[in-house]
This record gives sequence, C-alpha cells and structure tokens, in this order.
Amino acid sequence: MELWFTEHHTKNVRLSIKVDKQLFTKQSSFQRIDIFESREFGRFLTLDGYMMLTEKDEFIYHEMIVHVPMASNPDIKKVLVIGAGDGGAIRELCKYPAVEHIDMVEIDKDVVDACRDYLPSVACKLDDPRVHITYEDGLRFVRRKEDEYDLIIVDSTDPFGPGEGLFTKEFYGNCYKALTANGILVNQHESPFYPDDARAMQRAHYRIRECFPLSRVYQAHIPTYPSGHWLFGFASKGIDPLKANLSQWEKLELTTRYYNTDIHKGSFALPTYVKDLLGDENESQY
Amino acid sequence: MELWFTEHHTKNVRLSIKVDKQLFTKQSSFQRIDIFESREFGRFLTLDGYMMLTEKDEFIYHEMIVHVPMASNPDIKKVLVIGAGDGGAIRELCKYPAVEHIDMVEIDKDVVDACRDYLPSVACKLDDPRVHITYEDGLRFVRRKEDEYDLIIVDSTDPFGPGEGLFTKEFYGNCYKALTANGILVNQHESPFYPDDARAMQRAHYRIRECFPLSRVYQAHIPTYPSGHWLFGFASKGIDPLKANLSQWEKLELTTRYYNTDIHKGSFALPTYVKDLLGDENESQY
Amino acid sequence: MELWFTEHHTKNVRLSIKVDKQLFTKQSSFQRIDIFESREFGRFLTLDGYMMLTEKDEFIYHEMIVHVPMASNPDIKKVLVIGAGDGGAIRELCKYPAVEHIDMVEIDKDVVDACRDYLPSVACKLDDPRVHITYEDGLRFVRRKEDEYDLIIVDSTDPFGPGEGLFTKEFYGNCYKALTANGILVNQHESPFYPDDARAMQRAHYRIRECFPLSRVYQAHIPTYPSGHWLFGFASKGIDPLKANLSQWEKLELTTRYYNTDIHKGSFALPTYVKDLLGDENESQY
Amino acid sequence: MELWFTEHHTKNVRLSIKVDKQLFTKQSSFQRIDIFESREFGRFLTLDGYMMLTEKDEFIYHEMIVHVPMASNPDIKKVLVIGAGDGGAIRELCKYPAVEHIDMVEIDKDVVDACRDYLPSVACKLDDPRVHITYEDGLRFVRRKEDEYDLIIVDSTDPFGPGEGLFTKEFYGNCYKALTANGILVNQHESPFYPDDARAMQRAHYRIRECFPLSRVYQAHIPTYPSGHWLFGFASKGIDPLKANLSQWEKLELTTRYYNTDIHKGSFALPTYVKDLLGDENESQY
Repeated sequence: MELWFTEHHTKNVRLSIKVDKQLFTKQSSFQRIDIFESREFGRFLTLDGYMMLTEKDEFIYHEMIVHVPMASNPDIKKVLVIGAGDGGAIRELCKYPAVEHIDMVEIDKDVVDACRDYLPSVACKLDDPRVHITYEDGLRFVRRKEDEYDLIIVDSTDPFGPGEGLFTKEFYGNCYKALTANGILVNQHESPFYPDDARAMQRAHYRIRECFPLSRVYQAHIPTYPSGHWLFGFASKGIDPLKANLSQWEKLELTTRYYNTDIHKGSFALPTYVKDLLGDENESQY
Repeated sequence: MELWFTEHHTKNVRLSIKVDKQLFTKQSSFQRIDIFESREFGRFLTLDGYMMLTEKDEFIYHEMIVHVPMASNPDIKKVLVIGAGDGGAIRELCKYPAVEHIDMVEIDKDVVDACRDYLPSVACKLDDPRVHITYEDGLRFVRRKEDEYDLIIVDSTDPFGPGEGLFTKEFYGNCYKALTANGILVNQHESPFYPDDARAMQRAHYRIRECFPLSRVYQAHIPTYPSGHWLFGFASKGIDPLKANLSQWEKLELTTRYYNTDIHKGSFALPTYVKDLLGDENESQY
Repeated sequence: MELWFTEHHTKNVRLSIKVDKQLFTKQSSFQRIDIFESREFGRFLTLDGYMMLTEKDEFIYHEMIVHVPMASNPDIKKVLVIGAGDGGAIRELCKYPAVEHIDMVEIDKDVVDACRDYLPSVACKLDDPRVHITYEDGLRFVRRKEDEYDLIIVDSTDPFGPGEGLFTKEFYGNCYKALTANGILVNQHESPFYPDDARAMQRAHYRIRECFPLSRVYQAHIPTYPSGHWLFGFASKGIDPLKANLSQWEKLELTTRYYNTDIHKGSFALPTYVKDLLGDENESQY
Repeated sequence: MELWFTEHHTKNVRLSIKVDKQLFTKQSSFQRIDIFESREFGRFLTLDGYMMLTEKDEFIYHEMIVHVPMASNPDIKKVLVIGAGDGGAIRELCKYPAVEHIDMVEIDKDVVDACRDYLPSVACKLDDPRVHITYEDGLRFVRRKEDEYDLIIVDSTDPFGPGEGLFTKEFYGNCYKALTANGILVNQHESPFYPDDARAMQRAHYRIRECFPLSRVYQAHIPTYPSGHWLFGFASKGIDPLKANLSQWEKLELTTRYYNTDIHKGSFALPTYVKDLLGDENESQY
C-alpha cells in the first residue's frame, strides 16, 4: 500500500517517507500529534505535521543536545529540560550518575503520554526517580527560577506555534537568571541551509548572544530534518566547550552512537557560509 | 505548474524538488542526462535520474573534494581528475597558482557539453590552459600512468552504471601506481546513513585501505544528496591531512563558502556509528 | 499534516488522496485491509492498497451494480451476492420489498467486521433479516447451487489476488447453473481505458459471453476508480435490460442519487473504442 | 528518471502523470504553456498547469464537442470556434463536407504555434482552406456578429484566467445574437463531481438557460480531466439533439473512436445527482 508522509522543507522541496501504518493521532490542546510506523525509520513522531523524531536517527539529535554540554562540565548536577516531551534528552541525561535532579517542563502532556505508549525506546527514562515532570509553558516556568540549574536544555519545536516563546530574548534572559555561575544553555538552533530556517536561526542566535558572554554554535547530520544539516546553540556564563577536558567524559565509558570526543570538537567547526550567517565573533577559536 | 523531480533515496524515502522547467535532456551513449531549472536550487544536473549537483549547493561538494587534499600538500602540481564532467572540481583546482597541469578524464562528452551550455558557473574553468580533457574511461586512462600525479580526484557517479569500475580494487591499485611519492587520492565515498549506500561506502573503503598506507574519511553536509550526510575518502602514500600545516593555505586567501581550515580538521571527526562502519583503524588520531 | 494515500493506476499514473487519519488497518488471512478518513471523500476502504470505495462516491457503484438488474426484472426474489463485504450492494438490494432472500458470500470476515465498525452508512443493512452471510470462497459456494437464484451479483476485487477465481470460465459456468430460468448475472467489469485493465475486462467479457446467451456491458462514472470510467457486465438467460419495462421500477419510488431510468438505458450506450474492445456482437441493439 | 506532472483536482486530490520530457514551455502574454512527453498519454498540453489535452484521450473531448451538435443538424455550414487553439475541434469539424466556413478565434497565438509544432495529430487541419484564424478575445469577436453562425463551439479553458469572460451572461447573449435561426451553442461545461467545479458548472448552466429556449447537458468519460466525468452544454434556438434524425450522420460514414449514435443519445442521460444540480427542467425528455 502506498501511504506517504510528506514534509515540505520549503514550498519547493519535500521529503516523503513511506508509512506502514498510523499508530496514534490526536489533536491536543496545543497541536496535532501523530505517530507512524515506517519501514525505513521505524516509528516516527510528528507535531502539526513537522517531523520531530524517528526511531532510526533520533540518537543523533539527543546525543548532541545532551553530551556536548555534559562533557563540557563534568560537575553538572541539576538540569532543566524544556520541551523534550518524547523523553530522548532525558534518556541521555540519565546516563550520568552525577546528575541529581532533572526538571522537565513540557507544555503538552499528550505528547508525553503518546511517547510513553508508542516510543518506549525514547521515553524509557521518564520514570527515573531524578526526573520531575511539570506540564507547563517553559517560558513561564523559568521566570520563577534563579541561580538554580547547571544546565538548561531547550529541546523545543520550531519557532512557530507552541514553541514560539522559546526563541524570544525575554526567555533567554530568564534562562540566564535561572542558571548557576557555571551554567550552560543549549538549544536546538534550526538549520542554516534553507533561507527561512536560516533567518530563524540567525534571530535566535543574535538574541542568545546579547544575553550570554559566551555563545557558540555546533552542528550535526540529522537526515530526517530539513537539509539534514542541523545546528545547536551553546551559551554559557563562561564555560567553553572547546576548552573542556574531555578525558573525564571518556572515563565515564558511556555508550553513544554519534557523539564522541572527536565529534565534540569537530562539530564546532562550521562551514564558512554558516559562520557568515552567524556573524564575525564566531570566527575560529578552535 | 506542479512539476516535480523525485529521487528515491531508498524504496521508502524520496526527496522531491519542484521544477520550473527542463532545460536539457539527452540519452547519451552512457546515460540519460537532464538539466532542470528550479526555484529552490537554481539549475540542477541529474544522470540517470540521480542528482549530481545543484547550483545552490554544489560548492560544498566541490570545495570539499578539492581543498582538503590541496591544503594537505601545498606542492601539488599535477592533478588527474576522473569524472567531474560538470567542471566543478576543475573550477576549484584552477584557483591554485601552483597547479601546473590538470588532466580531466570523463567518459561522457555529452555531460561536458551540456554543462558548458547550461551550467556556466560550474563549467567556467574548463578552458583554463592548464586543463586537458580526455574523453575516455578513467579506469583505462589511469592504467597507462606511472608516478605522474600528485593528486588524483575521483569525482564519479555512484558505483552502479558507468561509474562502477571506479570503485574496484584494480582501479585503486592503478591510482596508487599513477601517483608520485607524495601522492594523494581523494574520492567521493557515498553516504553512511542508508544501508545500501553504507555498504557501497564500506566496500570502497576496504578496497582503498588495502592499497594505500594512509586512508581517512571525511564528511560534509550536502543537502541534496541522500541523507545530506556525505563522505569523502582521503588516501595517500604518507601525507596526513590532520598533520598538514594549514597556515600556507590561509596565505593563499582563496575565497570559499564551505571549506575553511576549521572544517578541514573538523570534517575528519566522524560519528561513532560511521567509525564503526569503517572499522577500527579509523579511531581518533585527531 | 501531509499524509497521502496513492494508488498507481498504471506505472505512470497515480491518483493521490489526502488522508486525515487512518482509522483501521489489519493484515487478514487474505489481504491487507485499511480504512482512512479524508476530507474530500469521507472515509474510504482499500484492500491491498487498491481503492474499494469512498463514502462520497460509493453510491454510484452500488446503485449501478444493483438497480440495473433489479429494474430489468421486477420479479427477482432470491439474490446471491459474491464479495461485497462492505455491504453496499446489500443496502441497495434491501430497498426492494419483493426481494425475499439474499445470500452474501464473502471470503474475508475481517472486511465485513471492519466495514460494520467504520463504514456504517455502507454496511447498514447487513443485519436485515433477509440477509444471510457465509464466509467462504464464492467460487466454491456457487458450485453447490442449482436453479436457485434470480440474480447473482459479483462484486469482487480486481482479477488479481483473492478475487482471481471470480473471473474464470468455470466460475461463470457455475453461476449459469445456479441461476433460475430468468436469471441474471451482473459483475464489475474493470475499466476499458488503461491497457492492462482493458485486457482483464476483455478476458472476463469473452468468458461470460461463452456461457450466457445474452451479454451486455454498461458503464458508469466512478471518479475514484482508475480512469473514472468503469464497466459492468450484464449477462442473462434471456432477459434484456434494454427491453425492460422500466415503469414498474419508477412506481417503486426508490431514492437514488445516480441511477434513474434514463441512465438505465444510457449506460448501455458505449463509446466506439469500448465496443471495439468487446467485439462485434455488442453492436447497437439500442 | 522520476519526473511527475501533478494537477490538483482539489486541494485534497491530485492526479500525477510520469513525464518523459518537457518538449515546450513558454510564458505567453496570457498564460504559461507547456507540452510534455509521457509514456502513458503520449504528448500532453497544459495551460497554467491545468491539463488541456493528451494525445491518448483528446479524441473523446473533441469528438463529443463537435459531433453531437453536427449530428443534430446536418445543415450546418458556418461555424465559429472560440478557444480551441490546439486545433482538435477544427480537425473534427473538417471531416464534414457540408461545412463551408470555420472561424476560429483564439486569444493566444502562442498556443496555436506550439500545437502546430508539437501536436501535429491534433493541429493537423488548421490549414484547411475553410479555416480562418483570428487571434482575439472571443468575447469581443462575437459582439460584432449577428445571425451568422449555424454553430458556435466554446472550447475554452476553465472559468478562471483567460477563459473567464467566456462563462458570462453577456457572452452567451452575444452568442445567441450571432447564431442563425437554427443556431446551436455548445460549450465545455466543467465537471459535476468536485464541489468547486460543480458550482462553476451550475453558474454557467443557469446563464445559458436564461439566454436560450432549449438547453441540455451531456456527458463523457475523459480520464485526464478532474473526476473523469465531464459535461458539455448544448443550447439552441430550437433544435433538440434528442429528436435529431441520426441516420443522416450514419450515412456520412465518418470514423470516430468515442462518438456514435448510441452515445449521442446515451450521453444526455444524466445521473440523478447531476440532474439535481442542473435544476428540474432537465428532467427526462428522453
């Protein structure tokens, strides 16, 4: 049977994935949630028709959003994860014995419930005793916090719809306040390739840079995201991922499939056209 | 008008690009050649329905296949380019004043003619006096050569159809013989992501490794290739791209849009799952 | 969200329908059964990826397969329906007070169950007391019958897979034997337009003609079937649909949306190219 | 190579045809004109991305728009064809020895030129000495005419863009005036199936009915038009196609592939839902 999920990466480009069946669909209070079964990518989750993750390549996104900051500071104990309803970032964080407390703030409980039911390999650590889930707008949650988290991970949808507030200067300012003196903010940073995505990425990047003394961008190959070229933002009150002593991370002997300490450094080496989009101060310190 | 070019990346995944018009089509003696005009990617060239290049992102492929080896050895004078009928690799090579002679061996003259007519921004240096074009099977051409080239670039199609011979052990052995003592072989190395591509990549890699004392793999983000994650093979009689003194390249002040000396190093940092595919000896020397 | 069901009408033509959600999917012992919800056509049923019916246009098929024979002989009392697991033909038959007994023979109970659950507007008369359902291969069921039915309706899938036997000469011969002296056989007859469908149609037609003294073909516009041009076969031991007194049908005052007594006659007027496919003896007797 | 032309029949339904190559493309002063080569349908012409005709099934449309009126009145001598730049209606008209003069009024000369070059089997009679081509808006041309034509054929595009004026009451009134006492107006009448098309069809129909004493609708199976169910309008000052003596047409012994005298009558037998759309006065006179 020919049933295809299609995502328009732009009006003129589309990626289509053959679907074996639809496992779940719901219009929640915030968005349309769908989970499909496919031969190529296993199960995959979409929100409002945008690809969020597939069982086949989610490890790339989740490892890169978690291990880059975690390896940059081995003393991270308290983490706030905003969005991430699927649980993939949580799963990676729970690999660290040093982490004591994880607050996960997800606006849409239906996403979490659906992922628990249909994506157990991703949502598998949501019941770890260190994980505390709050169903609330991340923007609001973080306003109340001060000097509390060593790491904030913003694992949001794109800057349209429910995720919009998580790309504002106000939000980044509140994150700064909520972080401890060694605090790190990591966020998904869109793609540099297609013009609309690139503009969203620039906007977010400029706002973060105004709020944080150190701000870098790193990249990964995520085949099911538009262009396959995805960026992450790394901002901190001082910790520099390129000066981190990565041997401590090696000693943890964690199992990963994308991230490694070569990638840690290599992922900050950006193409010239991406550097140009980001502005001069991202010039090589590498 | 809705006219879409579709490439099946696997049986279950397809990338579709809206076409404004078809500029050229011909069944040559070797393959079906098409050139299209599109809003998103400008003009693009396909061979037997496989995407070869688009005006928008060809710079990534061509810069990465040329500048990585060229920056690894500033003394390259004589270059053999196999395939590359579009002229993109030639254009990048011609930026180097030190290069004295380029042999380009392309099996299909029709590809060259079409690119001259319809892709002038790519084919623009085919008339450089240093460039010598031979229309012949690269496999055969290289057999006759010994200790002649400082660099061989294999810019072939996929290992099916006309490009098949360029992925054999016999071919790599002949390349070794054709190279000078400091010789470097660079080739397009397929993608590690989809299983069929990954197997082709592994096969090619093992064969090269048997022929060359030093063999590394590096990567780039090429949005219009399957998965967007593309690999290149770097093999040499001794020159190590990770030990190169890149300051000489910086002094040339060439204009590039993807390649830079950070990327030079960063692109050899491979994801763990790619290292696993390539085998142990690719472990970090980085 | 972009989720599209696609049916290839030929290798080079495809009809795609935007799906809102998948309501049901099951691999039964005989075939893959799917029911989808769509904005344009309401719910629709596919078997092995082939469109069987949509809520929006199923009335055309079901009215034409039932009312043409029923209006041709007002004395039909006992009917055998083969296939038709969706219940649409049954629904139309149940409109006739004169009908006393309907045997429905469907090979796949899962189709019936799914239609009862998800297509109530189609399956709504399956519990009429006159309806007797047997889950069995129609080919086998009809072998045991003699001089029993005034009408046999073969509402089968295409002549590939489970429906194949229902297009054989043996089957048509058994139908002849199972019919009373005034008996009529009606079957879905494929489309005349695309070459492969046309050949299947011809084959079925020639076989029926060898078994029955009177054999005609009529047509309807069914937008969701390949080419939109669909044929039905009408065969009988003598009753001629073009000589029927249709005023009796008018007196029944049944509500229909496609069929009427003009259409009854008009639908037997076939295009010249269809007549040519069917052979000379279908020349106008009209 | 996978190159597909897609027409959206509605926002939720699309028909896609595999294209072998694009033969012609031009943005004329009025519209975008494209001619493609396909395996399934041979060459096909699109205007602004809407399917106009394919070599494989154009005979249906052209025979039905010409032979139905021509058989209804064997004395037609002077004909006005509006639109029809492809020449298909002209080709059919030229089969009639009694026809003395054909005025063809097409707004877009580029369509005619393209069809002459790429669709010779359709445009083949444009040089018949009886054919007089004027490149002008049909709306304007007909305003100047009075009691001149025995038949006007409006072979227009859909009632959007350049064809819009050809669906107005003013236009139909001017056609009435331009016709002789036995005059007939035939026009393409859109499809009854998809709601937007059906509304356009109703609007056109009501306007014609206000202008002409006799107005009927007939249908044909045209697989490459939306839904495959296409209508034609037949309006006249008195001549009734259902009372025509068709034996005269038979005597002409013209070769046709769709039209025949059975179809002539049968095509006026409309489905109940189409009659309902058209209003009561179209009830059976058949």
